[in-house]
Amino acid sequence: MTVTLVLGGARSGKSRHAEALIARLPGPYVYVATGEARDTEMVDRIALHRSRRGMDWSTIEEPLELSDVVQRPEHAAQPMLIDCLTLWTSNLMFAERDIAAACATLEAALTRRQGDTVLVSNEVGLGIVPDNALTRRFRDEAGTVNQRIAAVADRVLFVVAGLPMTVK
Amino acid sequence: MTVTLVLGGARSGKSRHAEALIARLPGPYVYVATGEARDTEMVDRIALHRSRRGMDWSTIEEPLELSDVVQRPEHAAQPMLIDCLTLWTSNLMFAERDIAAACATLEAALTRRQGDTVLVSNEVGLGIVPDNALTRRFRDEAGTVNQRIAAVADRVLFVVAGLPMTVK
Amino acid sequence: MTVTLVLGGARSGKSRHAEALIARLPGPYVYVATGEARDTEMVDRIALHRSRRGMDWSTIEEPLELSDVVQRPEHAAQPMLIDCLTLWTSNLMFAERDIAAACATLEAALTRRQGDTVLVSNEVGLGIVPDNALTRRFRDEAGTVNQRIAAVADRVLFVVAGLPMTVK
Repeated sequence: MTVTLVLGGARSGKSRHAEALIARLPGPYVYVATGEARDTEMVDRIALHRSRRGMDWSTIEEPLELSDVVQRPEHAAQPMLIDCLTLWTSNLMFAERDIAAACATLEAALTRRQGDTVLVSNEVGLGIVPDNALTRRFRDEAGTVNQRIAAVADRVLFVVAGLPMTVK
Repeated sequence: MTVTLVLGGARSGKSRHAEALIARLPGPYVYVATGEARDTEMVDRIALHRSRRGMDWSTIEEPLELSDVVQRPEHAAQPMLIDCLTLWTSNLMFAERDIAAACATLEAALTRRQGDTVLVSNEVGLGIVPDNALTRRFRDEAGTVNQRIAAVADRVLFVVAGLPMTVK
Repeated sequence: MTVTLVLGGARSGKSRHAEALIARLPGPYVYVATGEARDTEMVDRIALHRSRRGMDWSTIEEPLELSDVVQRPEHAAQPMLIDCLTLWTSNLMFAERDIAAACATLEAALTRRQGDTVLVSNEVGLGIVPDNALTRRFRDEAGTVNQRIAAVADRVLFVVAGLPMTVK
């Protein structure tokens, strides 16, 4: 099994590229959405993502307990797409969880999967320093999670304008 | 003829690199500016850009009808530099145009050119999620335009600190 | 001697990577911090950076006169890590110094060193255009400094999620 991390900016085509990577493998597939459909904008985005995928995908919405989902025995051998780590980090922050501990548990769970895993994450640190301390903390946490998952991934891609650059 | 997309951040040297690519070809050249000189800051930037280019450049300022300019018969065989798609996207948004339709028309026009084309565009999606919905929509539109033009381009470069990385 | 520029976003792992590059060389080493410990957040960050380094590092805090430090005879042959150029640019701006002149002096000083130099800098231009003119000016200055130092560097790396991509 291999673990792939697909990094990119907003509307960089990273999710679409991650789906294309998974779709090369035999299905059925598991899609793990860390986003919750809280407002209409998010509902629209989730519907758009859903419409791009086919019938042999099962969808799990899990904002926090990502390592539990990753370890479910019924999905252990299926290709799994997790979209995205940045929203997961944000969810952990707002729920006042220990992000470093959650990340360590996820890392361990990923290496125990039988099927391939593709994780999507946003790069959010390449703009101007945010004004407020909470946003700065979020940016730091998101960057740290990216570094940790990149360290255990077999392959890391940076997607620009829909095109992948190989980082690892 | 080849189509090259040069992506990069603010002050990444992307315009200068795009000009250098064009200048390797025999002139005369066409420079298409999508920015309008609305305030002094913009006037200064346009003047700076202009001063970097030589005498065998003709300049066209066109905020919206980019495909018309691209298709002008008198420039069909000349190397053309379009700077930049991000401002064009912003102009289309504020004029309440159909951006997807404009993009499709531009794609078709680009593939019909006889001369080489170099397009410059900003990557704006690698920072923190903007607070307001309009800015988020702009960021999404700009990212989608980049993906679409990158898909039809023969070559895509990502410029960092004045240096190009080949993406495609 | 070689000059290496390590670019990256916030929490991209750029400083850690730069330290790893230096640590491959024989010590003792010089660490030049351009940041000043003005608030508790910054104090924490500097302490974190310091705790990652070993005993054979000497630390110099210099917010403005970077070329003076680079030229100190007692450190001329030692590997030097400068972290970071973006904060230096910000310091120069607030002190109303001539940034272009300071940059030219630094470039000259770097090429005269006997030991290797690794400079760290932030890429800050890949997000949405900032609202206010001062922040836009800072972004432009930071981007221009990155381009200038990249032009004289022997090697330029762009760090994403802790992993270096070779730009030059």
